[in-house]
Amino acid sequence: MRDRALHAIAECQHLATMTEEPGRVTRRFLTPPVREVHAHLRRRMVALGMEVRVDPAGNLRAVWRPPYDGERRVVLGSHIDTVPDAGAYDGVLGVVLALEWVRLAQEAVLPMSIEVIAFSEEEGVRFGVPFIGSRAAAGRFDPALLALKDAEGISVADAIRSFGLDPAAIDEARVDADVVGFVEIHIEQGPILEAEKRSLGVVNRIVGQTRLSVEFAGQANHAGTTPMMMRRDALAGAAEWIAAVEAFGARTEGLAATVGRIAVEPNAANVIPGKARLSLDVRHALDAQREGALEELVAKAEAIAARRGLSLGYVRQMSEPAVPMDERLTAWLIDAVEAAGFPARTMPSGAGHDAMVMATRMPAAMLFLRSPGGISHHPAESVLEEDVEAALHVGRKFLERVAEDRGF
Amino acid sequence: MRDRALHAIAECQHLATMTEEPGRVTRRFLTPPVREVHAHLRRRMVALGMEVRVDPAGNLRAVWRPPYDGERRVVLGSHIDTVPDAGAYDGVLGVVLALEWVRLAQEAVLPMSIEVIAFSEEEGVRFGVPFIGSRAAAGRFDPALLALKDAEGISVADAIRSFGLDPAAIDEARVDADVVGFVEIHIEQGPILEAEKRSLGVVNRIVGQTRLSVEFAGQANHAGTTPMMMRRDALAGAAEWIAAVEAFGARTEGLAATVGRIAVEPNAANVIPGKARLSLDVRHALDAQREGALEELVAKAEAIAARRGLSLGYVRQMSEPAVPMDERLTAWLIDAVEAAGFPARTMPSGAGHDAMVMATRMPAAMLFLRSPGGISHHPAESVLEEDVEAALHVGRKFLERVAEDRGF
Repeated sequence: MRDRALHAIAECQHLATMTEEPGRVTRRFLTPPVREVHAHLRRRMVALGMEVRVDPAGNLRAVWRPPYDGERRVVLGSHIDTVPDAGAYDGVLGVVLALEWVRLAQEAVLPMSIEVIAFSEEEGVRFGVPFIGSRAAAGRFDPALLALKDAEGISVADAIRSFGLDPAAIDEARVDADVVGFVEIHIEQGPILEAEKRSLGVVNRIVGQTRLSVEFAGQANHAGTTPMMMRRDALAGAAEWIAAVEAFGARTEGLAATVGRIAVEPNAANVIPGKARLSLDVRHALDAQREGALEELVAKAEAIAARRGLSLGYVRQMSEPAVPMDERLTAWLIDAVEAAGFPARTMPSGAGHDAMVMATRMPAAMLFLRSPGGISHHPAESVLEEDVEAALHVGRKFLERVAEDRGF
Repeated sequence: MRDRALHAIAECQHLATMTEEPGRVTRRFLTPPVREVHAHLRRRMVALGMEVRVDPAGNLRAVWRPPYDGERRVVLGSHIDTVPDAGAYDGVLGVVLALEWVRLAQEAVLPMSIEVIAFSEEEGVRFGVPFIGSRAAAGRFDPALLALKDAEGISVADAIRSFGLDPAAIDEARVDADVVGFVEIHIEQGPILEAEKRSLGVVNRIVGQTRLSVEFAGQANHAGTTPMMMRRDALAGAAEWIAAVEAFGARTEGLAATVGRIAVEPNAANVIPGKARLSLDVRHALDAQREGALEELVAKAEAIAARRGLSLGYVRQMSEPAVPMDERLTAWLIDAVEAAGFPARTMPSGAGHDAMVMATRMPAAMLFLRSPGGISHHPAESVLEEDVEAALHVGRKFLERVAEDRGF
């Protein structure tokens, strides 16, 4: 399988040359390089004997229907859009490997149909809203999204029309639910598998996520004439809280708590900050744990503000529950990993993925490949040949397991 | 004296109507409203029998020479420029009260000359460099400053020429050094006198000031997929240091240590900050204490960075030694405060003032008036009638003390 792994990596690198910005990989929803990617993948799909179409949400979809028994149907896929200045593997690798899995199913003469979906949009870069492709495929596309505009004032509907598609027909993108389920292969985008020297992980849940906007308000004042004990320094209060957030995250198993944004007013070297606005991002695989953490961190902020004579305000800007992967499909994937000779490491995904949206429509499962250095969304993003090869072995075992199942 | 105090306050409020921005007090170096201020003050000066001129740095200067013995000469003054959206008293009050002191000297038939200077520039708003007026008066004006440009591309030299003055003659602004000294009356711009329920303070030193730019650099990473223990979060390191700066300031007598500016990269809610850049402003009346504090705080930052696997960089952007006020002149001012019936409170000034620059040329002293709420550089800036009245009583006593002195 090593030659196929090498070929898959080369193919991802080739697709990375199809970009909006020469010298950098940037490929937003339905921009011109998406046509090149479609053309390339379409050739691969046709060569595999698949029936190809582009649905009204811009998802490239190909179905393999064997001449023998193909009643059982599995859906595989990931996305082909990227963040600005991206790497070559986030999303695209999952589509390339899905096609390799189809080839393996064909070679093993497995009695099943396979649909591969190259989702048009997952990153949320162009319109500020992620999962446009998988929302449509899962039948969860809110028509209000069609009116969203990008930085140039072009709406989602305009973008779809310019691509030669009909936004009014977006319902036709919905996958019929009569399938075994959806499986997504994706790079981990984190350091855990590398730290544990593992090639693969099986995702059991996509973590839930809450985002708060928090503001500490005190009194802006002269940095030279206001004694330390007479200050109401909003940044000093915020700093105490940032330290508390970090410490709480470190001692709470499975919690990710991050202050990623900060702005102070008036933001002058010689003025004590009167206001500090921060973001808080909290994630956990268990919703009760996440809500508990949030309560604790807000209480901590209130206590800090009260002790310092600051006022505190906060707004919940996002709150998404955790999404469990399908138990049976995940168990099969674990079996397949072990059957292929690897230890099965189950883990939550700290990032959102198309599988999270597809899970609202059908059983869904996810396979992670180790991310060297934990690096993603960056030109230095990479994968190891041995890990890609491992994912091919797992695909063979997984599809065999699906074919064996008589539960359908 | 209460009626004179009320009149001085009313005069400051009237001068505050002379502004670049209707509805807000903004009066930068040699902008059109400065002409109105000059015209108004000139009438007051002429009415007092003073000889008036505008020097080549735009300082309005008036000299009272009594018909009797006027050998002894005292210089009084403060600035008439303001920050944007200023109050009515910062600077201007010192000029208005200086003219009241002249009247008191005349009424008491004191054998001395008095020069009053309304400095053209102290705040550094228009050209980013403060003390343009007092630098010229102290003979410390660097001709390179003439080339500085404001936001509209107008140079200092252009601004001086547009005002009808000759920038090439700026040396003529220098006060001859054969004087008793310079005294500036100014609002405290801090909360100390109010907290101690005092009307007046006598400044013994202008604190020294160092400004650092500090950068913590770690690794930007995904806020969802990077476990807490695998992070190198630049903001978390910066927050720990901000807390350390505050704690160190609080336990070090007379130290003011402030982080007023902060910026992180990439500054996104879902990304662990890779860089955090901060300002540190450290002030103390004693230079050795200030340098010691700086050393301590840099060492603290280095220790935090090392423990967290962050890199640390810092640049010293400003370093000004403390400026002591003249001992004899300050002793006279203390005597005058006590003779006027007030307790003498000596205190350092945490902010820079024209007196600091004038001290490089001649003995200098400074009298502070209580700032209600510690508020300045804000429309809510105010003074109390009783404090202005106290400053008039002190003026009478101080000038009498100067007249008595036979040391000259």
